[in-house]
Amino acid sequence: MYSPTTKIIDIGKRPIDDYVFEAIISFQEGVDNIILKGRGDFISRAIDVYWALKDRLGNSIELVDIEIGSERVRGRMRSYIALKIRRKY
Amino acid sequence: MYSPTTKIIDIGKRPIDDYVFEAIISFQEGVDNIILKGRGDFISRAIDVYWALKDRLGNSIELVDIEIGSERVRGRMRSYIALKIRRKY
Repeated sequence: MYSPTTKIIDIGKRPIDDYVFEAIISFQEGVDNIILKGRGDFISRAIDVYWALKDRLGNSIELVDIEIGSERVRGRMRSYIALKIRRKY
Repeated sequence: MYSPTTKIIDIGKRPIDDYVFEAIISFQEGVDNIILKGRGDFISRAIDVYWALKDRLGNSIELVDIEIGSERVRGRMRSYIALKIRRKY
């Protein structure tokens, strides 16, 4: 039975295009879903990466879930966002 | 016929608690839905405001929709998030 593969990409300080290429290469290698995860100050960056990816891949990808959450990091609660993107073809 | 009221709160530089109180007072005045809207660097702040509001109001509110988008602001595309919160009772 085929089970879809999912890869999490943690968004940090690297240039946005680094994450875009990492996502495109992962899709080309057959990954089905990518989760762009951004914490604290990198939350808006994760959304920027999504738009840059959408610009390049258009309708071949689809945003299937947006999750917001709060995690304890070094004793402090930090918000995060997780954008789940599915490769349609 | 009763139509639910919705108020948009634009998240900016003010302290988080300012937005929390504004939301609580709006709910007390009978507003049914509040949309916390954060653009660019204030996206993570909008999520922080949501968690601070959830801490205070617990299960009396519910996150019913998360929208991410991209808007042209002074000639540049800027990402935004809109968190729609419903007052349950």
